Amino acid sequence: MDRSEELDPLRAPSGFADLLGYRLQHWSDGEAAVAMAVDARHLNRSGVLHGGVVATLIDAACGYAGCYIADKSRRRRAFTLALTTQFVGTVASGDTIVCHARKVGGGRQVFFAAAEVRNQQGALVARGDATYKYRGRSGEPEGEPV
Amino acid sequence: MDRSEELDPLRAPSGFADLLGYRLQHWSDGEAAVAMAVDARHLNRSGVLHGGVVATLIDAACGYAGCYIADKSRRRRAFTLALTTQFVGTVASGDTIVCHARKVGGGRQVFFAAAEVRNQQGALVARGDATYKYRGRSGEPEGEPV
Amino acid sequence: MDRSEELDPLRAPSGFADLLGYRLQHWSDGEAAVAMAVDARHLNRSGVLHGGVVATLIDAACGYAGCYIADKSRRRRAFTLALTTQFVGTVASGDTIVCHARKVGGGRQVFFAAAEVRNQQGALVARGDATYKYRGRSGEPEGEPV
Amino acid sequence: MDRSEELDPLRAPSGFADLLGYRLQHWSDGEAAVAMAVDARHLNRSGVLHGGVVATLIDAACGYAGCYIADKSRRRRAFTLALTTQFVGTVASGDTIVCHARKVGGGRQVFFAAAEVRNQQGALVARGDATYKYRGRSGEPEGEPV
Repeated sequence: MDRSEELDPLRAPSGFADLLGYRLQHWSDGEAAVAMAVDARHLNRSGVLHGGVVATLIDAACGYAGCYIADKSRRRRAFTLALTTQFVGTVASGDTIVCHARKVGGGRQVFFAAAEVRNQQGALVARGDATYKYRGRSGEPEGEPV
Repeated sequence: MDRSEELDPLRAPSGFADLLGYRLQHWSDGEAAVAMAVDARHLNRSGVLHGGVVATLIDAACGYAGCYIADKSRRRRAFTLALTTQFVGTVASGDTIVCHARKVGGGRQVFFAAAEVRNQQGALVARGDATYKYRGRSGEPEGEPV
Repeated sequence: MDRSEELDPLRAPSGFADLLGYRLQHWSDGEAAVAMAVDARHLNRSGVLHGGVVATLIDAACGYAGCYIADKSRRRRAFTLALTTQFVGTVASGDTIVCHARKVGGGRQVFFAAAEVRNQQGALVARGDATYKYRGRSGEPEGEPV
Repeated sequence: MDRSEELDPLRAPSGFADLLGYRLQHWSDGEAAVAMAVDARHLNRSGVLHGGVVATLIDAACGYAGCYIADKSRRRRAFTLALTTQFVGTVASGDTIVCHARKVGGGRQVFFAAAEVRNQQGALVARGDATYKYRGRSGEPEGEPV
């Protein structure tokens, strides 16, 4: 069992995380980080990191940040309502980028998260915000059964 | 030569468009459309279309919308400054989604575009806006040599 | 009774709409328009229309677009979750600007709206999107008693 | 001379800052804070703080954050390209809210800033990001003559 599965028992095998190659690096109450090594598959027609890759990491990390639950027999799920990204810096193929997200507010139906994407030198690559609605009753403190 | 290459001679082979499988379907002055068939690779851990896929199509289509140039020996390139996405509807695996974008304003340095993503029944899946800066002098009417 | 009160029986007297001087110009199922004559009070320190004025009109019109109800003894109310604005064109003091908004999707808890702000010549001044949560049960088809 | 003028010699008298009653509270290289006491004039038809007020403070503080220049005989000016706001918490009439903004990146033509709005107890009211283009050559290190 690799570290990603350990961190994220809900990871969909062969889904978008696998296609891009990002993995959950940290997950705790209200916080999450996802990391990805940038390679040629992630580049746009100008040869730089596609904006959609950055938006993907922000959406992934922000979603995790609001869906942590300590009891591994329970879970929380949410769908994204709105997502924003600011592209502050450039990234080259070969860089590893990490997106750290924090839940910044919300209640039992909706939550808000904010994220920063940095390269391995710590330079800011992008910022983003996302707003989510919990699925069903999974925003309740006890979540839902897996 | 497939239809995508014909439409987009600048397409980066083996880049993010190939990884996701979206293709440029229409490209004219101030407008562009990209289309993608949704399959299991595009899903998130909840089994629905990853928000990052939708943001990717919006960024791609909006970027093309502002970078059209009739003279195929010239080109325009731009980098994304800011991108927003609203997730209005859900998409199932097997659907084909199309993102239509229009350039809505700007000048020789910056341009603005707006996009809608619809499924094959025409239902709205997402809306988005993006703001770009032209690279170098490629926002000039004559663009740059390829 | 002025036309604004007729259109909007819920208007808060002496609130932000009065401070800025915008008024509801059109309100129907899923659509709304607000209009405002720009004067010196709306300018920023560079002497051009403050971005906050534009964001205000977008938030106001989008909110109305999702809260229409034909039965005037009932109402719908919502609070804004997220708001985005793109500043496409400039506005001079003396111009009248109109923000048209359309509800583009949603359900009984959340709705999405999109807006365009144009000057009296019809030129695009700004675009925006907003996401709302209905208060209480006011997203139900019958709304709530006033 | 009041403290606001001292901090902001460029403030437009009788403009939007005066209409709303916000003032520049802190201004240094890459940072700014604006503060405002919320009263009945700032409320929407539901009796809560209008989203446009919050967007205004974010746009104002972010703009200042990127336009600081130590030499008071010079200045920097910018116009907003894109602005986003997440409405995390509610605000009551009588609260004083403060918006702190930081420039997070950019170059001589464009800059990016991020902001948080908090009430006097320090609770997060809103987050926002903004992207600006410097006017003329005012993004150069030496700015422009006033």
